[in-house]
Amino acid sequence: MDHRVCALTPPMGWNSWDCYGAAVNEEQLLGNAAYMAKYLKPYGWEYVVCDIQWYEPDAFDTDYTPLAPLCMDAYSRLIPAEKRFPSAAGGRGFASIAAQIHAMGLKFGIHILRGIPRQAVHARMPILGGGTADQVANPFSICAWNSDMYGVKDTPLGQAYYDSLFALYAEWGVDYVKVDDIACVKSTPEHPYSARHEIEMIRKAIDRCGRPMVLSLSPGPAPLEEAWHLGTHANLWRMTDDLWDDWSALKAMFRRCEQWQFAVSPGNWPDCDMLPIGHLNVNHRKGSRYTRLTHDEQITMMNLWCMFRSPLMIGAEMRDNDAFTLSLLTNRDLLEIHQKAQDAHQVRRTEDEAVWRSQDAEGHVYLALFNLSENERTITADLPGNSRSVYDVWTHDCQPCSGTQLSRRLAPHASAVYRVEIDR
Amino acid sequence: MDHRVCALTPPMGWNSWDCYGAAVNEEQLLGNAAYMAKYLKPYGWEYVVCDIQWYEPDAFDTDYTPLAPLCMDAYSRLIPAEKRFPSAAGGRGFASIAAQIHAMGLKFGIHILRGIPRQAVHARMPILGGGTADQVANPFSICAWNSDMYGVKDTPLGQAYYDSLFALYAEWGVDYVKVDDIACVKSTPEHPYSARHEIEMIRKAIDRCGRPMVLSLSPGPAPLEEAWHLGTHANLWRMTDDLWDDWSALKAMFRRCEQWQFAVSPGNWPDCDMLPIGHLNVNHRKGSRYTRLTHDEQITMMNLWCMFRSPLMIGAEMRDNDAFTLSLLTNRDLLEIHQKAQDAHQVRRTEDEAVWRSQDAEGHVYLALFNLSENERTITADLPGNSRSVYDVWTHDCQPCSGTQLSRRLAPHASAVYRVEIDR
Amino acid sequence: MDHRVCALTPPMGWNSWDCYGAAVNEEQLLGNAAYMAKYLKPYGWEYVVCDIQWYEPDAFDTDYTPLAPLCMDAYSRLIPAEKRFPSAAGGRGFASIAAQIHAMGLKFGIHILRGIPRQAVHARMPILGGGTADQVANPFSICAWNSDMYGVKDTPLGQAYYDSLFALYAEWGVDYVKVDDIACVKSTPEHPYSARHEIEMIRKAIDRCGRPMVLSLSPGPAPLEEAWHLGTHANLWRMTDDLWDDWSALKAMFRRCEQWQFAVSPGNWPDCDMLPIGHLNVNHRKGSRYTRLTHDEQITMMNLWCMFRSPLMIGAEMRDNDAFTLSLLTNRDLLEIHQKAQDAHQVRRTEDEAVWRSQDAEGHVYLALFNLSENERTITADLPGNSRSVYDVWTHDCQPCSGTQLSRRLAPHASAVYRVEIDR
Amino acid sequence: MDHRVCALTPPMGWNSWDCYGAAVNEEQLLGNAAYMAKYLKPYGWEYVVCDIQWYEPDAFDTDYTPLAPLCMDAYSRLIPAEKRFPSAAGGRGFASIAAQIHAMGLKFGIHILRGIPRQAVHARMPILGGGTADQVANPFSICAWNSDMYGVKDTPLGQAYYDSLFALYAEWGVDYVKVDDIACVKSTPEHPYSARHEIEMIRKAIDRCGRPMVLSLSPGPAPLEEAWHLGTHANLWRMTDDLWDDWSALKAMFRRCEQWQFAVSPGNWPDCDMLPIGHLNVNHRKGSRYTRLTHDEQITMMNLWCMFRSPLMIGAEMRDNDAFTLSLLTNRDLLEIHQKAQDAHQVRRTEDEAVWRSQDAEGHVYLALFNLSENERTITADLPGNSRSVYDVWTHDCQPCSGTQLSRRLAPHASAVYRVEIDR
Repeated sequence: MDHRVCALTPPMGWNSWDCYGAAVNEEQLLGNAAYMAKYLKPYGWEYVVCDIQWYEPDAFDTDYTPLAPLCMDAYSRLIPAEKRFPSAAGGRGFASIAAQIHAMGLKFGIHILRGIPRQAVHARMPILGGGTADQVANPFSICAWNSDMYGVKDTPLGQAYYDSLFALYAEWGVDYVKVDDIACVKSTPEHPYSARHEIEMIRKAIDRCGRPMVLSLSPGPAPLEEAWHLGTHANLWRMTDDLWDDWSALKAMFRRCEQWQFAVSPGNWPDCDMLPIGHLNVNHRKGSRYTRLTHDEQITMMNLWCMFRSPLMIGAEMRDNDAFTLSLLTNRDLLEIHQKAQDAHQVRRTEDEAVWRSQDAEGHVYLALFNLSENERTITADLPGNSRSVYDVWTHDCQPCSGTQLSRRLAPHASAVYRVEIDR
Repeated sequence: MDHRVCALTPPMGWNSWDCYGAAVNEEQLLGNAAYMAKYLKPYGWEYVVCDIQWYEPDAFDTDYTPLAPLCMDAYSRLIPAEKRFPSAAGGRGFASIAAQIHAMGLKFGIHILRGIPRQAVHARMPILGGGTADQVANPFSICAWNSDMYGVKDTPLGQAYYDSLFALYAEWGVDYVKVDDIACVKSTPEHPYSARHEIEMIRKAIDRCGRPMVLSLSPGPAPLEEAWHLGTHANLWRMTDDLWDDWSALKAMFRRCEQWQFAVSPGNWPDCDMLPIGHLNVNHRKGSRYTRLTHDEQITMMNLWCMFRSPLMIGAEMRDNDAFTLSLLTNRDLLEIHQKAQDAHQVRRTEDEAVWRSQDAEGHVYLALFNLSENERTITADLPGNSRSVYDVWTHDCQPCSGTQLSRRLAPHASAVYRVEIDR
Repeated sequence: MDHRVCALTPPMGWNSWDCYGAAVNEEQLLGNAAYMAKYLKPYGWEYVVCDIQWYEPDAFDTDYTPLAPLCMDAYSRLIPAEKRFPSAAGGRGFASIAAQIHAMGLKFGIHILRGIPRQAVHARMPILGGGTADQVANPFSICAWNSDMYGVKDTPLGQAYYDSLFALYAEWGVDYVKVDDIACVKSTPEHPYSARHEIEMIRKAIDRCGRPMVLSLSPGPAPLEEAWHLGTHANLWRMTDDLWDDWSALKAMFRRCEQWQFAVSPGNWPDCDMLPIGHLNVNHRKGSRYTRLTHDEQITMMNLWCMFRSPLMIGAEMRDNDAFTLSLLTNRDLLEIHQKAQDAHQVRRTEDEAVWRSQDAEGHVYLALFNLSENERTITADLPGNSRSVYDVWTHDCQPCSGTQLSRRLAPHASAVYRVEIDR
Repeated sequence: MDHRVCALTPPMGWNSWDCYGAAVNEEQLLGNAAYMAKYLKPYGWEYVVCDIQWYEPDAFDTDYTPLAPLCMDAYSRLIPAEKRFPSAAGGRGFASIAAQIHAMGLKFGIHILRGIPRQAVHARMPILGGGTADQVANPFSICAWNSDMYGVKDTPLGQAYYDSLFALYAEWGVDYVKVDDIACVKSTPEHPYSARHEIEMIRKAIDRCGRPMVLSLSPGPAPLEEAWHLGTHANLWRMTDDLWDDWSALKAMFRRCEQWQFAVSPGNWPDCDMLPIGHLNVNHRKGSRYTRLTHDEQITMMNLWCMFRSPLMIGAEMRDNDAFTLSLLTNRDLLEIHQKAQDAHQVRRTEDEAVWRSQDAEGHVYLALFNLSENERTITADLPGNSRSVYDVWTHDCQPCSGTQLSRRLAPHASAVYRVEIDR
């Protein structure tokens, strides 16, 4: 079965990183799942993803502790820390959490770092099916920002280790795996690391595990040159480093979308990263915050992500959502574009403005106007011939068309998305 | 009118560079046009393109003469050297040649270098409509391998100069312009040059000139990051430096095609460069040669160019074509794929083999198998469900399908293209 | 004769750039010479240097005018613009100015850009002894910030052109030549430019011209890798881009001095650039200014330049010197270190402080303490054994030594230089 | 005491790497020491250095075994593997070997890799004086070609670990330490590694250990920019990657010597690397070999190393020396230049030839002529004024001087060194 089948539309869900960093726990995970089931599921939201360090008992906020002790099973596989995930007791791993999330009609995802724990390697621990951890590790292949793992060598034993990981995740009931540090850059000048081999091993391991899983890669800014390889093996891949709630980072995403638009197709969704909205950094030593993006900027972010058809992953502690935040996530007209539009493409982009356009199978045309400048500005786009009316997906205002262009005055950083009805 | 309309299928033609370098003349141009009209036009070939230095009276073979005197009109515009193009006498430029080519049912193209002649700039010559050449030149923007020109500044006067150029080309009857040195690289560390401005000025000048012209850019290896900008303003753009008759360069094109496949669409044709086949370097001091590519390699080149849907530009002195060379250019089945296939994509590529696949509107599937290795090799591809028969476009052999895969034994550097008939 | 002989101690003088940019005139040149003769000559100051664009009639302040017309003689050699230098009338060039400066007991220097004027090249003008300008020019070798010149090819005719230049300068009576744009960087990716050839041609031309001239190179930041080649052919060379009156640029010079200290020797003086003190940018459209460096910073600059033994070139319109500025230039104790010390070396350097040390032939030791931080700070250095007393070259305070260290409290950006007397 | 004092002349000795790779043993070490004592000590040779991996029981030839188990004491310090060094039994480390070498009138050196063993870190072993290995390690700072170690953090505990290492080496009686992987390059893009901190910690640890030790750094090609820092903290540092018996690598050393000549001074000896002469790779699986350098090339190497005043470290299994190899090491005239010359500098260098010159305190001048080309060639150098006679240090031929130049015909890759006697 082609791996693209398990994500024919861009995934929608929640991820624990932006609100709980390296330290989310069972209550927070299930609490957000329950919120999603109640408020968001009717709009298409379905994935609940537990981010990094779930195997580290004493993790806190967003920092990593170099050389921290990690929880592992007897086969060098990381398992959830019971201290944070009580239901993992007795070797059950994430099985109970996954079952509960499935029972809500949702799907469950986890984050992993490519590789094998250094602590298993230096203790020469066994791996499932024979061999030891030191035999599969490449001790020169390290992550630049997290000291937990060594890369895995592209050998039969290396493949066996990855197979054993995904067999375990399939047992648990995992539906979605986000693989981190899978960059295409050099780890050291003498040991250039190409993620190609590890991506291919992971692809094989998923195909063999007997359970469909969305494969989401987090390579930092993926190189355009790898678009074919990424799409041939994965469903999602990040186009950038981590995005936070900052206008300049959001504005920079327009350039990324310009570059990656050609690689968007059913089952292949270049990823603009999580939506840093609502209540963020909830457990941070320095205190939590609500997103620093203005309302206009948040709408602009939703508009770009949906027009481009990026995966949508909510970063907020959803139980603290205010009405505005919830409204961002429940705009049926916009989400319909996200799920169903075709041939999305940038029409124009300068430092000051951008225009995107797509259409759907029923003949609607979608136009998005973005004011990227610091001043109020009129943005104009050509209308299709025979345009009858223009419907604003945020204000629900519908205007008959006159002339061949659509022009709107927009506040700085603001944007608008229109559905154009065409006479036939 | 959208600029893509003038090249809804990938252009097919002949270009003078590979056989006559910087020194083609009127007889050679028209002689090849006559050959095309007689032997190739029925297969879809139509463009006859005069490459670089047609304004330099004493040009010879493929070298450039630094600071060579060039022929110009009174408005700082380069004009054909009468010594080489007698019909240009009396200020008629390429008009007579274009008219003769049009009369054959073909189209006429020229090569230009971006910019304005340095000799006009330093002589402070006028430009059409007012102003002088030194006012539009950027004396820091030079080509790295040809000393004829300075870049043009992005100002109203700069636009006026480009407008005056394309107005002249429209008068002559030019249908196709190949713009060279339009790279996206730095010309000097302090004066980083982005071609974006000059590409945009040229686009505008064409749109204003009143005659549709295919715009082909020759930036050396275009950066993938610019795919959107290139496609929005041009029809063709080169993915590589000049290609010659060398297997390693041909093999490297597979990687380029992998990377650029996403940017192929009607009106936008990333360009694999000319076909270095037949009689080459005809006028070279060191002697001419027949292509160094083997028959298998030439077929492999045609197969890749046609599956990928690159523009096809013949490099040979066509009047010296042998039967094999002519057969390469007159394979109706293959050229039909080139003109009509959809959704062409690479299925697989390693150092040793590649597989491409596309389909057409009538439901045929096309499969191309390439042996890139130095040994005989069996290449295998999955067949679509319900495949009935497999037709080899080069041998015309047709075999019923059995099983779910197509497997062929291929010589080193050889390849095959198949049309698969599907039962409905 | 070894070229080092003409600068056995680091040169001291004045240069027109910081106060008059590209537009100094005869009155300003001679007026500053007269000032130097009267007030500074007794302290060792002797060079009066006319900086760039003296051949451009309409130059103003510090900007360059692309493609500006330049004054040349019949042999493609730039000559002073009479409009600015009236005594140049009748083809006398700088001869009269040089003679007047010599009559004051001083020496005369000029700035040139490597290469040959583009306007001579495109007009195919003759060069002395046969040949034309276009035959010696490399049209791909351009300066990144000034459009006047093309580089000169390393051929006998190229050498002849350089010989003709320095023959003219010798006739004029030039004692010092500052050659600009003589960088060791690429001018274009495909035409990597190494200054080595042009430096060697200029060296030969000076050796042949019959008059000793100090050769000062202005390559921007010279690469350390070229130290041997620079020292073998030139007397001075810049370690940095232009220095202006800015603390952060001054602080950065400490790192450069750390790196270049090994290349300092009689006749070879790595150059910290001009002293941006006193009245600067006198003729600038936007208005002139007094140096933005504080008194402490100016003393720190003098201390570093003198300890390191950089050339000293005054940037001020000296006739507007205030008492403090004049005092900077007339500290006999410090200038004696500059002229006579040996074995100058950095003892220590951090972000916050630096210590330098040297000695002289009579057995004195010199210690310089620099506070590079933003806070008051005590700086300490080891004293030589048998130190008897410590003399501060700025306060003239002399203290007997006690203990093995010298410790001084210094204000932010301040410094002190001490002469240590040793018991024998 | 200034660290330069312990190497006021460039060290001369033997190192085990070129003949025994990672696997030298006690018998080989002591056998070569005995050879040195008998045949070379009278010529000034004195150091016997045991290279890398002496703590790895199963090391063989020149390869490294990723994650190999290493011998350590209870404080995370590597100790000699008894299997290879029987006298290390009972925790005596290298003490017995050092004592035996000292008894021969020679000195003893060891190689170390910067950092702390990964196996100590992951086992959280103690370090001397309190704390554990994981507390001092930087798990992102790894060597690019050897997986044994992590870098040490610049903290009091990190300093304590280095102090404990050198205290142990002092106990053993080590006279010379070669510290490897102490490069000034990035280990990962996000964790740029500067060796400055570790070099400074090691310097301090030696100063505190109570025993003078020559500090030799092996950073691969040290950056020129760090010359001051290297000289301020170390005695020797490598200018290149490993040198082997290959003409092109030897020829490249001329460029390095050109660049580094300014940093040579008593106590600071930029290092051309070991002399790959005689019997090499003695214990290699693929078989041993005699040096591939011709006799002329070996003499050229000795001439350059001695004129430049590089450290001299013999790479051969000396007990297998043939007469020629021994003659290379026992040329008293040449070694006198190596030990006593002053002001050594390159006079000239092209692709085809080089000339070096130095002098000594008694007024002799030394000239070295090198033919770097592939053809026989006459090389010429200026003689000092009043030159009386010219003595060839290899042929012992002495010729009276006539004229102002010395000219010699030399075979390809050959060279000659002359002592010039001067009349006073």
